[in-house]
Amino acid sequence: MSTDPITVDVTALQNALDGRWAHVRDGSRKVASDPRFAVAVGDTVEEQRAAVLERMHILAETDYARLGFPGKYGGLDDVGGAVTAFEMLALGDLSLLVKAGVQWGLFGGAILHLGTERHHEKYLPALQSLELMGCFAMTETGHGSDVANLRTTATYDADTDQFVIHTPDDQARKEYIGNAARDGHVAVVFAQLITGGESQGVHAFVVPIRDAKGKPAPGVRIEDCGLKGGLNGVDNGRLYFDEVRVPRDNLLNRYGDVAKGGAYSTPIENKTARFFTMLGTLVQGRISVAGGAGSATKVALNIAVRYGNKRSQFSAPGAEGEVPVLDYLAHQRKILPALAKTYALHFAQSELVAGLNDTTPPLDAVTTGSVPAEDPNRRELETRAAGIKAIATWHATRTIQDCREACGGAGYLAENRLPGLKADTDVFTTFEGDNTVLLQLVAKELLTGFRDHFGELDLIGTTRFVADQAVETVIEKVGGRRLLQRLADFAPGGGEDAGLLDRNWHLDMFDWREKHILETLARRLRRAADAEDPFAVFNESQDHLLLAAHAHIGSVLLHSFVDAIEACPDERTRDVLSLLCDLFALSTIENERGWFQEHGRLTASRSKAVLAEVNALCGRVRPIAAELVEAFAIPEQLIGAALLG
Amino acid sequence: MSTDPITVDVTALQNALDGRWAHVRDGSRKVASDPRFAVAVGDTVEEQRAAVLERMHILAETDYARLGFPGKYGGLDDVGGAVTAFEMLALGDLSLLVKAGVQWGLFGGAILHLGTERHHEKYLPALQSLELMGCFAMTETGHGSDVANLRTTATYDADTDQFVIHTPDDQARKEYIGNAARDGHVAVVFAQLITGGESQGVHAFVVPIRDAKGKPAPGVRIEDCGLKGGLNGVDNGRLYFDEVRVPRDNLLNRYGDVAKGGAYSTPIENKTARFFTMLGTLVQGRISVAGGAGSATKVALNIAVRYGNKRSQFSAPGAEGEVPVLDYLAHQRKILPALAKTYALHFAQSELVAGLNDTTPPLDAVTTGSVPAEDPNRRELETRAAGIKAIATWHATRTIQDCREACGGAGYLAENRLPGLKADTDVFTTFEGDNTVLLQLVAKELLTGFRDHFGELDLIGTTRFVADQAVETVIEKVGGRRLLQRLADFAPGGGEDAGLLDRNWHLDMFDWREKHILETLARRLRRAADAEDPFAVFNESQDHLLLAAHAHIGSVLLHSFVDAIEACPDERTRDVLSLLCDLFALSTIENERGWFQEHGRLTASRSKAVLAEVNALCGRVRPIAAELVEAFAIPEQLIGAALLG
Repeated sequence: MSTDPITVDVTALQNALDGRWAHVRDGSRKVASDPRFAVAVGDTVEEQRAAVLERMHILAETDYARLGFPGKYGGLDDVGGAVTAFEMLALGDLSLLVKAGVQWGLFGGAILHLGTERHHEKYLPALQSLELMGCFAMTETGHGSDVANLRTTATYDADTDQFVIHTPDDQARKEYIGNAARDGHVAVVFAQLITGGESQGVHAFVVPIRDAKGKPAPGVRIEDCGLKGGLNGVDNGRLYFDEVRVPRDNLLNRYGDVAKGGAYSTPIENKTARFFTMLGTLVQGRISVAGGAGSATKVALNIAVRYGNKRSQFSAPGAEGEVPVLDYLAHQRKILPALAKTYALHFAQSELVAGLNDTTPPLDAVTTGSVPAEDPNRRELETRAAGIKAIATWHATRTIQDCREACGGAGYLAENRLPGLKADTDVFTTFEGDNTVLLQLVAKELLTGFRDHFGELDLIGTTRFVADQAVETVIEKVGGRRLLQRLADFAPGGGEDAGLLDRNWHLDMFDWREKHILETLARRLRRAADAEDPFAVFNESQDHLLLAAHAHIGSVLLHSFVDAIEACPDERTRDVLSLLCDLFALSTIENERGWFQEHGRLTASRSKAVLAEVNALCGRVRPIAAELVEAFAIPEQLIGAALLG
Repeated sequence: MSTDPITVDVTALQNALDGRWAHVRDGSRKVASDPRFAVAVGDTVEEQRAAVLERMHILAETDYARLGFPGKYGGLDDVGGAVTAFEMLALGDLSLLVKAGVQWGLFGGAILHLGTERHHEKYLPALQSLELMGCFAMTETGHGSDVANLRTTATYDADTDQFVIHTPDDQARKEYIGNAARDGHVAVVFAQLITGGESQGVHAFVVPIRDAKGKPAPGVRIEDCGLKGGLNGVDNGRLYFDEVRVPRDNLLNRYGDVAKGGAYSTPIENKTARFFTMLGTLVQGRISVAGGAGSATKVALNIAVRYGNKRSQFSAPGAEGEVPVLDYLAHQRKILPALAKTYALHFAQSELVAGLNDTTPPLDAVTTGSVPAEDPNRRELETRAAGIKAIATWHATRTIQDCREACGGAGYLAENRLPGLKADTDVFTTFEGDNTVLLQLVAKELLTGFRDHFGELDLIGTTRFVADQAVETVIEKVGGRRLLQRLADFAPGGGEDAGLLDRNWHLDMFDWREKHILETLARRLRRAADAEDPFAVFNESQDHLLLAAHAHIGSVLLHSFVDAIEACPDERTRDVLSLLCDLFALSTIENERGWFQEHGRLTASRSKAVLAEVNALCGRVRPIAAELVEAFAIPEQLIGAALLG
């Protein structure tokens, strides 16, 4: 590849980014350009909540609310489109995003995937139109990550043929529940199903929480979570149930049912496997959050790059005028590798959305209530979704912070959007799965591949099991693509900086790292399999486990990026993407150069050459940075940063 | 040192932390425990501003407002005490902190240090009592970092014996000015002094901005900066001056004066040196911000550690109950190295405060208006203050974010304090000097030692100058302490993990790194001294320059920590501090292990051993983590986190 200055065809680049659901993206851009969606700042909490509700009603009149639901009930049966539209909505008001996610994603998704025909008929049309607003009441104060051990109970009472929903104590109250404090009328409540004195694990129940007048329903206590770090247009609340009775029919009974009289039946006998299957149907939420984080990151980068071009400070000796701050290497270093990673995440996200779409049966089929056969692609997708959600949301938090700082004092004014982006996206790192817990799940899945074999073992108890299985299964599961054929030519010939831009070298480095970390982890766990204290074994390896997940997702990102370049029909755009991919790959290797040296994969001088090359790549990306953020095609009113005016 | 479990005498540890101004800290704790200083959330901007103003008046009745002013004008002449009290104030309402900083630190400090007797007499008593509230109007929209090129003008008019203060265009308006939007009646305005048609560089002028009724003074336009990312109790505003006339006496004339008729005189002929000397007198602001960042970090760590003890999630196999989240290695890794670095920064800050105190002449002497002789200790102090400000504020931003995430969803509720801490401290990284610009100044000062030799060269133009000087001066300036005698035994004998806890090895690693980076930087700049394009030379080395500053401050922190341990009279406390110092040193080496391997100072296997040792140290610190945050002795009402209740 030449090192001539590179030029960008912004339209072709936008096409490459927009991909398969370009039509949905364009539709979203049109809706978002409605003046009623302009970004506002300075409203009180109550004003924000009112504005968000109004916007929800505007959305309900567009395709937005219908994309993810079956045609049979007025939907458009386009799962990929639904997730893409969510991603696009995240360019604007993030409270609206989260409220829409609660209503149509979590609440609607639970009804669709955990319920059966009777629930679909009764609720799906009403929830699309907002005639019925609902909550997704899973998290409890005492159990956020460990949801298998929720403590709310749903006890079947054969005498009345009802379930009794009950909060045993304050630690079991439902916590941070969106739509609960103000607008929700029903909640899908996750609770331990008890029938005939026996617990069958966590199931979901539709529970009315407000009456027609908006007062709490009898036995239901609702508290407002109050002011939050952001997302104050969402009415998060706490729910307490004092022996609230609901008809037996209110059990969302796709994966477990109770017959009149109390007999329990299920298509998945293993209790843990059943619960994880139920959770698995909700994977769309995690994928959506990852996409939303990506959009917020893009808005921040758009602001910081354009401001970096416009804002100048200090004069260079012998030159006219002052230097645009984006000309400074330190400024480029703050922003451009993050921009490259944002592209990498974008392509990985697009692949994830396509995978979700293509592994979801037509939604009309879902409504029959049958349980799909185990699909290994789907399992891999769930793992990848968990990992990308973690990496994308951390990337958002860090990048938005760096963009804020790159805009100096101006970046701290609400009128310049960045403070709101920062505050609103912060919680993404811990909701829909705490990132650390998610990465742990990724690593465990990589090691074992078969979560349902875990049986009754809890997350920590899996250690011993993992240890037995790991070494056998690890080899063929790593990377999945292109691995073996490339291990041969690991170090390109020539000097220390030869081949730094060789894509095969990048892929080798990423894949080898993933493989090596996973193999050593497996060996370590196997050695420790007979340990006295399994928790100690698990805990001593926890950083190793998380490293394995990081390395895996790094590899996933690079492969997605490479695939996107190969799939791009426009040569000039391939060059642009290739340059960004170089920056992504080398800045990642730079960050991990301590590890690569430890493992003999970078010599000291080659490691230094990587640093120098990242600097050089920043210099090459800098002249096209404005076009790179323009290609995100963010409607200008959503950017809403006065400093660009 | 043994690896037996370590115990903490919290009182002795608090004494070690409280140090020389313990009496001021105790006084501050008493004031802060007044119920009128309880942390509040959810107020509107106007309510916050009103509450902060009320608290300012409460503070004005305590010693707080008087500590940093000369006895002659009602002050207590205790500079160290003033900065320490500011640090303590930062445990609570950060808007109050910043408003107090504007009034008594920046505005009061400018009057004191840049003014002469006539200004002291007229303003110092009134500003201490809040009879007069003022602003510090330096930053302009177009010039934040490059303040030597401010564009507001102050033109002497001999006919009326007045200065005409003028804002030539909107880019020259004064921006983000605290106290401007609502409460300030005068402003110290920094403007280019022009007399007899000649510019003498930036000087400061007292300019009334409001009349007695609070309306903008004639010719002054005031705008409210509106909602900010945090600190909304501070009324930041923009000031525009339309040929506003002030008497000649309103020039703060310590470093440059204009006689009736217009003749300019100054004790410092060189314009750049004069301006930097003027700025140097304001070093107290940067030291204060660093201390404030430290306090906010401590509050966040106090919350996260206590919650991490209390919050449990998942059961360990074979054990009763669930595991406190702080028992997980990943959780320890998120919090405990940050806690160790917070201790390191605390001791470096204490040393800085003592240095400031001891290099400031008695304040009554300042009031004579004489210009102090060049003091090399003072110059070194200014450099260190700039560097510690940058590192302490970034550490605050990152640590508070990590603490927020460590508290999960609860960390996102305003009632749990962390969102406010995060939002309020964010701007610390870019105000009182953008961190990146400050670190650049640190590196340049390390290279040359003599900023005033720069003469008329601007910041970038210094490159060539630096290159000529650097190699000669660098050797003796590095580290300053203990360097030469320790280079001998670099690698302790024994296996790969031998001597990892050897303090001399830590010091060697830190000092050698600093020295090596600085030497190679100097050589690189010297080689490039004849380059065609000096900006390109500067820019290509900018990351190297920043690395030098980081390494220097790292070394400063470690030396301060070691000195604090040596100075501690209590043996048990020395053991505790030594353990924390090990964690600080090794986690820093771990973060930089890429660099250390590149430079042959860590072998691959020793680098891995460092990682393992950091894990082991986290395990040893974990049982005493609660005591380590208790020793900060933060008044409970200032912590104000409902999740601890």
